[in-house]
Amino acid sequence: MSTQLVEIEAAQAAERTSQEIVQENRDYTLFSWSVQGAANPMLMKRAEGVYFWDGDDNRWLDFSAQLINMNVGHQHPKVLEAIKKQVDELCFAGPGFATEPRGVLGKKLAEVTGLAKAFFTLGGSEANENAMKIARLFTGRNKIITRYRSYHGATMGSMTASGDPRRWPVEPGIPGVVRAFDPYCYRCPFGQKVETCHRECVSHIEEIIQMEGPNEIAAILVEGITGSNGILVPPDDYYPKLRALCDKYGILLIDDEVMSGFGRTGKYLATQHYGIKPDIVTAAKGLTSGYMPLGTVIVSDPIAQYFETHMLYGGLTYSGHPVSCAAANANLAVYEEEQIFENVDTQGVYLADRLNAIKDKFDCVGDVRSIGLFSVIELVKDKASKEPLAPFNGTSAEMAKLAMYLKSQHLYAFTRFNMLWVCPPLVITQQQLAEGLDIIERGLALVDEALQHSRNHPEEVHAPVRLTSASH
Amino acid sequence: MSTQLVEIEAAQAAERTSQEIVQENRDYTLFSWSVQGAANPMLMKRAEGVYFWDGDDNRWLDFSAQLINMNVGHQHPKVLEAIKKQVDELCFAGPGFATEPRGVLGKKLAEVTGLAKAFFTLGGSEANENAMKIARLFTGRNKIITRYRSYHGATMGSMTASGDPRRWPVEPGIPGVVRAFDPYCYRCPFGQKVETCHRECVSHIEEIIQMEGPNEIAAILVEGITGSNGILVPPDDYYPKLRALCDKYGILLIDDEVMSGFGRTGKYLATQHYGIKPDIVTAAKGLTSGYMPLGTVIVSDPIAQYFETHMLYGGLTYSGHPVSCAAANANLAVYEEEQIFENVDTQGVYLADRLNAIKDKFDCVGDVRSIGLFSVIELVKDKASKEPLAPFNGTSAEMAKLAMYLKSQHLYAFTRFNMLWVCPPLVITQQQLAEGLDIIERGLALVDEALQHSRNHPEEVHAPVRLTSASH
Repeated sequence: MSTQLVEIEAAQAAERTSQEIVQENRDYTLFSWSVQGAANPMLMKRAEGVYFWDGDDNRWLDFSAQLINMNVGHQHPKVLEAIKKQVDELCFAGPGFATEPRGVLGKKLAEVTGLAKAFFTLGGSEANENAMKIARLFTGRNKIITRYRSYHGATMGSMTASGDPRRWPVEPGIPGVVRAFDPYCYRCPFGQKVETCHRECVSHIEEIIQMEGPNEIAAILVEGITGSNGILVPPDDYYPKLRALCDKYGILLIDDEVMSGFGRTGKYLATQHYGIKPDIVTAAKGLTSGYMPLGTVIVSDPIAQYFETHMLYGGLTYSGHPVSCAAANANLAVYEEEQIFENVDTQGVYLADRLNAIKDKFDCVGDVRSIGLFSVIELVKDKASKEPLAPFNGTSAEMAKLAMYLKSQHLYAFTRFNMLWVCPPLVITQQQLAEGLDIIERGLALVDEALQHSRNHPEEVHAPVRLTSASH
Repeated sequence: MSTQLVEIEAAQAAERTSQEIVQENRDYTLFSWSVQGAANPMLMKRAEGVYFWDGDDNRWLDFSAQLINMNVGHQHPKVLEAIKKQVDELCFAGPGFATEPRGVLGKKLAEVTGLAKAFFTLGGSEANENAMKIARLFTGRNKIITRYRSYHGATMGSMTASGDPRRWPVEPGIPGVVRAFDPYCYRCPFGQKVETCHRECVSHIEEIIQMEGPNEIAAILVEGITGSNGILVPPDDYYPKLRALCDKYGILLIDDEVMSGFGRTGKYLATQHYGIKPDIVTAAKGLTSGYMPLGTVIVSDPIAQYFETHMLYGGLTYSGHPVSCAAANANLAVYEEEQIFENVDTQGVYLADRLNAIKDKFDCVGDVRSIGLFSVIELVKDKASKEPLAPFNGTSAEMAKLAMYLKSQHLYAFTRFNMLWVCPPLVITQQQLAEGLDIIERGLALVDEALQHSRNHPEEVHAPVRLTSASH
């Protein structure tokens, strides 16, 4: 095709209306975790910092950092520049080659995690797949303990590792995954209170280990802080106790920091808040802020030493992609140059204060949980009974109303079951946080009104809707 | 960090010697499918077209297109430009958003495959994971038939689907995978000759279907042309017969075109040589030529329609990454603007002629197989007995000698077991092809000499080396 033709095509492309672009996306591409007929994709035309603009030029405040990944915000000039520079220098080298950005990133990851070596994947799913594989090869054991309220990815291994109901329709998955309960203090599975419990959330794992065979268990795989299942911030001694349990039985601790790592909680790893060191860390999302696809598995020195003389049975064409590594290097440099984690600490205090006030103010708010800029509001029908505003793996008229209201105000936030997440880009200012939280408060007021109306008019109440599995 | 500091860091980076960069890669990163202590990574400093340059400024002829992915060659200016443009416009949008490059790519993929809708992943493993998931959801059946000599990826689902021995050390994998034999005419598993056989490579699959239960089988998953297990070009009626078998039992045909698709054989899909249409196609590698990580699952209209009203249980943060889609759009435009597939046809004829001459000329060459620029030389100790020059999943002194020789001549080519692949970038000229094939001929002459020496000195022959699994 001639240059003129390219220009004509570009001109035609420019002439596409927003509606035409959306239609093309709907007609020819499949959307994640969706009934396609109900998917209503929004066009993203441009973006900057904590904002993006839709096809009608409405400005949206991104309170979800897309999928909790755009940590440095949209279109950060330093990251864009680094990507373009690497593209010009060397856009691709196979996974067997050494490249400058790959080595620089490996060294930096060892430095910030205190671990030894990084294996590069493209996202969190593949990182967790490889972490489990590495744990099995290193220990010679097969079983992996994971937690029910967890999400580790959508490939067969990482999906089975997830406790999340998204695994149900695609089971059976891989053999060898054993599940434990979570440190979910608001709804303690052991009927305890955090002030007086004996940390049954850890001790029951020891019972599971005994029942499953201590020498059969390769690893315990946990999200540093549980993300899409509700920001379950554990008691302060949870991780030291879990680490001790792993040490007692020679079990590896795999820390999935895909969502909670790289600044989201104000540290490189959420587990660094608790003074422990995992054996294996997985990361993605905040590693590049999503500017380029990249995931990683970072392993301890003993594990790295093992693979000096043993085959690492894993690989992928784009492992160590130079542009992905360069994007990560630039993104990590921005964290430090612009003191992003300090901003997380500062804004995290403001966010926590506002969330606590929200909990006091609204009848429909049962609990709020936050650490840094990683937070959730858990909604209930009744504060005393804690009855959820929507059932597990379901939704309700009230939750739908809340989601619709936020949308109408151009606040982009993630809702699921009976929860609403507040996880903005880490560069957010207090004023921007206040802007979004004010909208959320108005939405919660509507929910309180609706609940009050239902209590006065019980004959109008609809049954909640459970999300269904595939139809066979 | 100030601009000055950035410049100082950049200057320091520039001062790193090649050896230091390699050392940093070795010290802090893990290499795919390797015993790390034996990994000897080469620095790639720069690259252009069919060549790249190592840390000592040696120019290498890339006869493997890296991992059989750099179809338009290294650093193609049009692809680089498109990536940089998209980075500036919109570097990221979550998987739930419509973006212009995503829609354009979806439409193009429907056009070139004759299928309906594309789901985007980041590589081939995830594409095959999702293809199997989609087939199971759509059919309501669980089992997947795959072939022994195949590689579909390294995540648990795609690894189990692979017949390749790389799966052994990480088994058991997912349940439900059933394996069949390949159309490997040079070493027919049924003891037949292609001229007189009854295509037992297909008919035995019907027996497997009967034994496994026709209503239990969701899909047959095959590489369009088997790649890293030996470029097994099937008889011309293999695919029509396999397609008919699928239709007879309502089984989906999943065509893994990760390696064989997007121009490698001169067509978008290798199966297009045989006049059939799969129900699902997976692709990666040649989709972007590796400039950006991208994989895809492209589904037929009935499958797309099914998911209009049923949940697609799959997703990933970087599904439909705008920069990956933009890279693919530019890469596909280059294929057409520069008539790359026509070059594959032309050079493919020259390559086939040279390979056939090589087979006649050297005692150590048992078979050569090629389609387009996708080809392999299969080495033997003896043409009559067909005894392989290295055992399955193993190597030998002769194969190592050949690999070392090619390396010494700065020819970058892929060897495995008893095979040597010739799969250069699709932009290669006849002169460049001749340059590499001449080197290969000199290497094969050395092997012939070594074999002759062994026959004359049987007391010096070493046992072949089988690659070992993990040590427990």
